[in-house]
Amino acid sequence: MKYVYYFGGGTAEGRGDMKELLGGKGANLADMSSIGIPVPPGFTISTEVCGYYYSHGNTKPAELAQQIEENITKLENELGKKFGDKENPLLVSVRSGAAVSMPGMMDTVLNLGINDDAVQGLIKRTGNERMAWDSYRRFINMFGDVCMGVHHDHFEEAMTKIKAKYKRKLDTELTAAELKELVAAYKQVYKKSVGSDFPTDARVQLEHSINAVINSWNADRAIAYRQINKVQELKGTAVNVQAMVFGNMGDTSGTGVAFTRNPSNGTNEFYGEYLINAQGEDVVAGIRTPLPISTLKKDMPVIYDQLNEIRLKLERHYKDMQDIEFTIQEGTLFMLQTRNGKRTGLAAVQVAVDFVKEGLIDEKTAIKRIDGNHLNQLLFPIFDLKAKAAAVAAKKTLAKGLPAGPGAASGHVVFSAEDAVKWAKKGKKVILTRRETSPEDVSGMWAAEAILTSTGGMTSHAAVVARGWGKCCVVGCSALDIDYKKKLMKVGNKTVKEGDYVSIEGVTGEIISGEIKTAESPVISGVVHGNKAALKHPICQMFIEVMKWSDKFRQVGVRTNADTPNDAVIARALGAQGIGLCRTEHMFFAGDRIWAKREMILAETLAEREKALKKLLPLQRKDFEGIFKAMDGFPVTIRLLDPPLHEFLPHDAKGQAEMAKRLKTTAAKVKAKVDSLHEMNPMLGHRGCRLSITYPEICTMQTTAIIEAACNMAAKGVKVYPEIMIPLIGTKEEFDILDVLIRKTAEEILKKKGQKIEYKVGTMIEIPRAALIADKVAQTAEFFSFGTNDLTQMTFGYSRDDIATFLPDYLNKKILKDDPFATIDKEGVGQLVKMGVERGRSTKADLKCGVCGEHGGDQESVKFFAKAGLNYVSCSPFRVPIARLAGAQAAIS
Amino acid sequence: MKYVYYFGGGTAEGRGDMKELLGGKGANLADMSSIGIPVPPGFTISTEVCGYYYSHGNTKPAELAQQIEENITKLENELGKKFGDKENPLLVSVRSGAAVSMPGMMDTVLNLGINDDAVQGLIKRTGNERMAWDSYRRFINMFGDVCMGVHHDHFEEAMTKIKAKYKRKLDTELTAAELKELVAAYKQVYKKSVGSDFPTDARVQLEHSINAVINSWNADRAIAYRQINKVQELKGTAVNVQAMVFGNMGDTSGTGVAFTRNPSNGTNEFYGEYLINAQGEDVVAGIRTPLPISTLKKDMPVIYDQLNEIRLKLERHYKDMQDIEFTIQEGTLFMLQTRNGKRTGLAAVQVAVDFVKEGLIDEKTAIKRIDGNHLNQLLFPIFDLKAKAAAVAAKKTLAKGLPAGPGAASGHVVFSAEDAVKWAKKGKKVILTRRETSPEDVSGMWAAEAILTSTGGMTSHAAVVARGWGKCCVVGCSALDIDYKKKLMKVGNKTVKEGDYVSIEGVTGEIISGEIKTAESPVISGVVHGNKAALKHPICQMFIEVMKWSDKFRQVGVRTNADTPNDAVIARALGAQGIGLCRTEHMFFAGDRIWAKREMILAETLAEREKALKKLLPLQRKDFEGIFKAMDGFPVTIRLLDPPLHEFLPHDAKGQAEMAKRLKTTAAKVKAKVDSLHEMNPMLGHRGCRLSITYPEICTMQTTAIIEAACNMAAKGVKVYPEIMIPLIGTKEEFDILDVLIRKTAEEILKKKGQKIEYKVGTMIEIPRAALIADKVAQTAEFFSFGTNDLTQMTFGYSRDDIATFLPDYLNKKILKDDPFATIDKEGVGQLVKMGVERGRSTKADLKCGVCGEHGGDQESVKFFAKAGLNYVSCSPFRVPIARLAGAQAAIS
Repeated sequence: MKYVYYFGGGTAEGRGDMKELLGGKGANLADMSSIGIPVPPGFTISTEVCGYYYSHGNTKPAELAQQIEENITKLENELGKKFGDKENPLLVSVRSGAAVSMPGMMDTVLNLGINDDAVQGLIKRTGNERMAWDSYRRFINMFGDVCMGVHHDHFEEAMTKIKAKYKRKLDTELTAAELKELVAAYKQVYKKSVGSDFPTDARVQLEHSINAVINSWNADRAIAYRQINKVQELKGTAVNVQAMVFGNMGDTSGTGVAFTRNPSNGTNEFYGEYLINAQGEDVVAGIRTPLPISTLKKDMPVIYDQLNEIRLKLERHYKDMQDIEFTIQEGTLFMLQTRNGKRTGLAAVQVAVDFVKEGLIDEKTAIKRIDGNHLNQLLFPIFDLKAKAAAVAAKKTLAKGLPAGPGAASGHVVFSAEDAVKWAKKGKKVILTRRETSPEDVSGMWAAEAILTSTGGMTSHAAVVARGWGKCCVVGCSALDIDYKKKLMKVGNKTVKEGDYVSIEGVTGEIISGEIKTAESPVISGVVHGNKAALKHPICQMFIEVMKWSDKFRQVGVRTNADTPNDAVIARALGAQGIGLCRTEHMFFAGDRIWAKREMILAETLAEREKALKKLLPLQRKDFEGIFKAMDGFPVTIRLLDPPLHEFLPHDAKGQAEMAKRLKTTAAKVKAKVDSLHEMNPMLGHRGCRLSITYPEICTMQTTAIIEAACNMAAKGVKVYPEIMIPLIGTKEEFDILDVLIRKTAEEILKKKGQKIEYKVGTMIEIPRAALIADKVAQTAEFFSFGTNDLTQMTFGYSRDDIATFLPDYLNKKILKDDPFATIDKEGVGQLVKMGVERGRSTKADLKCGVCGEHGGDQESVKFFAKAGLNYVSCSPFRVPIARLAGAQAAIS
Repeated sequence: MKYVYYFGGGTAEGRGDMKELLGGKGANLADMSSIGIPVPPGFTISTEVCGYYYSHGNTKPAELAQQIEENITKLENELGKKFGDKENPLLVSVRSGAAVSMPGMMDTVLNLGINDDAVQGLIKRTGNERMAWDSYRRFINMFGDVCMGVHHDHFEEAMTKIKAKYKRKLDTELTAAELKELVAAYKQVYKKSVGSDFPTDARVQLEHSINAVINSWNADRAIAYRQINKVQELKGTAVNVQAMVFGNMGDTSGTGVAFTRNPSNGTNEFYGEYLINAQGEDVVAGIRTPLPISTLKKDMPVIYDQLNEIRLKLERHYKDMQDIEFTIQEGTLFMLQTRNGKRTGLAAVQVAVDFVKEGLIDEKTAIKRIDGNHLNQLLFPIFDLKAKAAAVAAKKTLAKGLPAGPGAASGHVVFSAEDAVKWAKKGKKVILTRRETSPEDVSGMWAAEAILTSTGGMTSHAAVVARGWGKCCVVGCSALDIDYKKKLMKVGNKTVKEGDYVSIEGVTGEIISGEIKTAESPVISGVVHGNKAALKHPICQMFIEVMKWSDKFRQVGVRTNADTPNDAVIARALGAQGIGLCRTEHMFFAGDRIWAKREMILAETLAEREKALKKLLPLQRKDFEGIFKAMDGFPVTIRLLDPPLHEFLPHDAKGQAEMAKRLKTTAAKVKAKVDSLHEMNPMLGHRGCRLSITYPEICTMQTTAIIEAACNMAAKGVKVYPEIMIPLIGTKEEFDILDVLIRKTAEEILKKKGQKIEYKVGTMIEIPRAALIADKVAQTAEFFSFGTNDLTQMTFGYSRDDIATFLPDYLNKKILKDDPFATIDKEGVGQLVKMGVERGRSTKADLKCGVCGEHGGDQESVKFFAKAGLNYVSCSPFRVPIARLAGAQAAIS
């Protein structure tokens, strides 16, 4: 079994398509090496070792040690260096690298191989004594921290002591001799904490480091990251052992990270930052604020040109925006990593669109590459322009940082992740403000509206994580002087305390005190509200372009769930091709209607009930008229009353007393009715079509309202296509009884009015049994709409209201991959959907099938539904663009 | 299309196997006519006419009138009589007759064809003027009542007047002239009520009568009867038009009904009753108490012998006990009807067993013929012998009636069906006591423990209905003088008032005042409790015989649901081959255990929880030891904790205060825990395996208790086969996580004890998703047990606790054929069961599959499960015999 793959010298054992096996970093190092990009040689220990480790009681395969040894020899031979050599020592880095990038989540060890002999060899070889001792002390610190769990603070104390002793302000001011003294001090720190001497044997160091990287795969923070980012089903991490190159060898050395395009907005510009005389972690850790890559053009024009050429070569090779790491060692450029760059939604869409224009990819590839959440970010709010201008005019601008995450946000400042979680739980919007963030802060970052840091660059932890989530973020705002203890920050002469309002803008990086109204995105202004200026906005243009492409490929229809004419208008603007779900019950809550509804529920005779229903009829009819008008020319699916009647009644004494007074009865009678309607499991109770079976008069009233509204609007020239939908069908008989009633009611009205309306009567498929007998239901039903919310509840036996008690455990323990109410469970619920479609169409070949659960707006789910052959999905208005995109993706893949 | 079928003259157009088309009565009349039994000729209008009528807006097929006319002509020619003829008039009866008998539920018209001319012809022909006018007045009354809705009371008034006028006490005392006057008076009554003259045209009379019979099919009482008796999917009723024969032509005439064997206990004796000089409805209506058939042997020995011969011929022909109707017209015997006789469970089993012994049928046929409910009646209580003897000694015997329904019962006397329903709703056991019962009383009869009447015979309405239900019933107890108004009855010099206790015995017909303890049936005493005398009791012998035959044919295994050693012992005695479901949660409620359980729930840390669990461990272990011992040699399936934790906590303030005190905490904390565990839909909540996923320590404790108990009992020589069952699995991952935990726990114990125990780990299939992914679950699960209760809840989306709000409507409207929680829904839930079995076995060919829902004890359901290939069904101990029988029936059919 081959576990180790060598790369270097313009060739490699691995390939770029071996991400699963070698991890993203390993595969790309092999790839870069193969296409002639300067990469320090090394080897990758495959992800299978990590997988083996966790399935074999934390042991590694027997043959691994031998393979590593062979590759070390190869590496030593290629470079003419030797581990621990007094003349020309080999130093290596040990880095993690899974198939999916998990930035900052796993461990790295640099400068491995250094010891008392090797440091002398390093000095001889480089003539740079200071750098050698600096590398040594860094290695002890890093190895102690990462591999042995020595707290960084202990090393910091020793450093502080030395700095005080020699009156140095900065680390970089320490001399070689002082660093040598620090190395001795660090060894003491190590011995004291670990209980044994610092290991000088490079092979022992390597063994520990490989273990540390593998162990970090299952560290809490890494697990949490994978959960939040839905990274699953990976074998584990690969381990990359690579010859060290040094960015800390003086002023002709340096290290940097860059994106081949601007990751905030997608602009085609070389976008990155670097530090002179530094090692890679200095940039990522955000301790020193690095220089923008444009400065490199002036400082090292040859290196810059070489780097820029590599940038273009990588984009051509990978056909995607890259996130690269490089090191310059005494004037020589080395590429340490390339991977597809994380980006904001805006940038993701922009890059995809530009790549098409540049001929690098075709429209289909662009569509495949755009994530629904990215597209969604184009709909994110920005600051209201007037409100922001006023705040700026009032000199409320506090500072400006780097624009790292999309959108704009206002909120209360908090200074710790814990506080962010606490405030957010109380329903407050918070801006998490930190000097820098670390993986420990992830839950607080998740809870916050936006993230603000005083240090770090565009590739700092805060920036990378926020961008991934599409969260508003500004980083590296060095003007902020944060005092964690006092829970305040000073900006110039201003002080911002915990709880104060601050507004930050992810696109510009501006930080402004006070609350600023946010305004809708240009897409909403332009596409939805028809603002002509907004329509010309590049974001809006881009959105329209992507939607045009999507509709070109898409086969599945996209409708919307809308209960009001207003929702219907928005959804149509965003591309909805009809209403897939109009919930009639919401109409009963508005204004005074609830009283007629309650009167109906309280009624004890059919006559009383009919009297109350008569009051509701004109109100419902008016609602439907508005909706038909808004959906002129498109079908409108209206679901008959669904929730149990007790949902319409007041459950507290005060409300019951009010109801009694208003409906001229006694509170005792109201309470008795509430009690009589109480259900142990309302989700499985007297609701849906079961109500219309018991009270056919409700069905009659609703049908009357729908058909009369359709007639009225048709008379005014509106093209109406009402589809009456019966909820919660479990047997063919239920459908048939109500189908007969609806058709009888409708035909009488049409006959009386002398009008012809094309209407359909169909059913929700949301009870498992309905899917099982779909062939029979389809004998009479004219369409199916899968209610995947209820179908998920009953297929799993999960109450949506109660699942929170065990869902976290279920996600933690990987029993569930996703919340099944967010993303369709393909294996189980999806099976019933497919069965329903197949059986339904076995009876009626052209049966129209749609989906109207929340899943209709979830990208993964839409792809599944499209492949399952549904005619359309229906989702909330603002999810319509994602559904259109996902529909295209399903058609392409 | 042929709608009318002629019979008569030793031949017939119909056949005995045409019950669907001709109804039971029509098919049997044709059959009897064909085998040479004297039957008055006539014709049957098929059930298709009734079906057509209800599906075509209450109209009959166009070609029907012509076909009826042809058959009337045929009938007139055969008999040489003519409708409305002055010389020799044809009179006919018009009777209903569906494929399934619905005694007393539908309408009959007799003497049809009589008018002012025909009455003269009748007089000429018979020379019996009195009989002619009596027939005429009867016809006007019946036609008016049945076809035109004239209230019987109006005719009664006229009758009373005439009787007063001529000072007659009895109807039979009226002379021909007086009856002629009564006919004129009845015509006036008719005209006054209906608004038109009484129709004299026989064809008009026939038209109305046929319509009346067809309409009576959908009368409320008929619909109610079909619901209670689960008679469904019939096209409708046939209409039998048959030449009249007259039992009311004097003392050489008469009419009777009889059973070919005793319908109470199955004894092979001619069992029936007759009235001299009467028409059929006089017997059935229970107005005059008829003579036993043995009297006929003395009164009319020739007729008796002829009748007895027919009795034996019919039994040989139909190979079942028959219920016959006959009329003697002036010394000539006519058979009017034969059908399979209704009987008590005791009689049903006895007849089946005797028919096998007599060589009329084989064992398989006998098994097929025994209804589970019949068998169940053998388990019915009888009076405690000592208690009854004491009551008799204390002269508490009130009277003796005819023994019409099985068992024995004590309860409060009520005198109306409404009162029976009202008292029963309050939880009182009542004895419904009436002069006679009518179809209007059905709901009260259903609500009562037993039924007692002062008139009527073994074939009266009360007797037939009660016997069908297996309800205790005594009829024709003429010693009772019932006063409905005062709500009391006098028996000799004793008075029994509403609410007084009365005890009645269905086997002897005895009525005793006061409450008498009931005692168990000989089967329970003998088979279950090993009482040797009881074992020799004929009922017990019969039971053992039927069970022996059942086990001979049965292939599906029968286990029991038992939570205690006691239940296990009973079930084994009744034939259970192991435990299919042992619910561990019931064990937590007993005695002080609930406190340890509550301590566990209240625990906030793992350590606290484990401490509480440690207290529960020895208690559970002891329970399991007892169960293993009782099931020595048989498998015991133990389900891990299933209900949500809040079920174990007190929900009232008092209970919470007590719990706080006992567990040394505050009531507020207890309340907070209760609140935190509250669920909107507990049925879909945090329960089943979800508990063990969150609290693995519960699973560990229960596994420990099971395996340690198994070890302890095995050490004592008991053969133990524990099967650990995980409830509420919806994903393979849930099963796998707990499977690993259970096996690890078990193996550690076995290793420590150095014992070997064959144990299995399997799962319930009760979530629809589990059935859908059964192929995957079977990769690790060693057995499946279908929990059809929950599976029904989730497949239909019905909460078992809430279904009562709409189930009656659903049964009324035929949306559901049966309560799906009583009889498995084959179409939907059954589909999932089949799917689960097939998919499970596609992975593991020999996967053991069982059922442990309530359906495991339902005859229909067991047949389905056996055919679906399940290895066993499991049911409550007293349902085990039914399951054994049903298993045999499934194997035979």
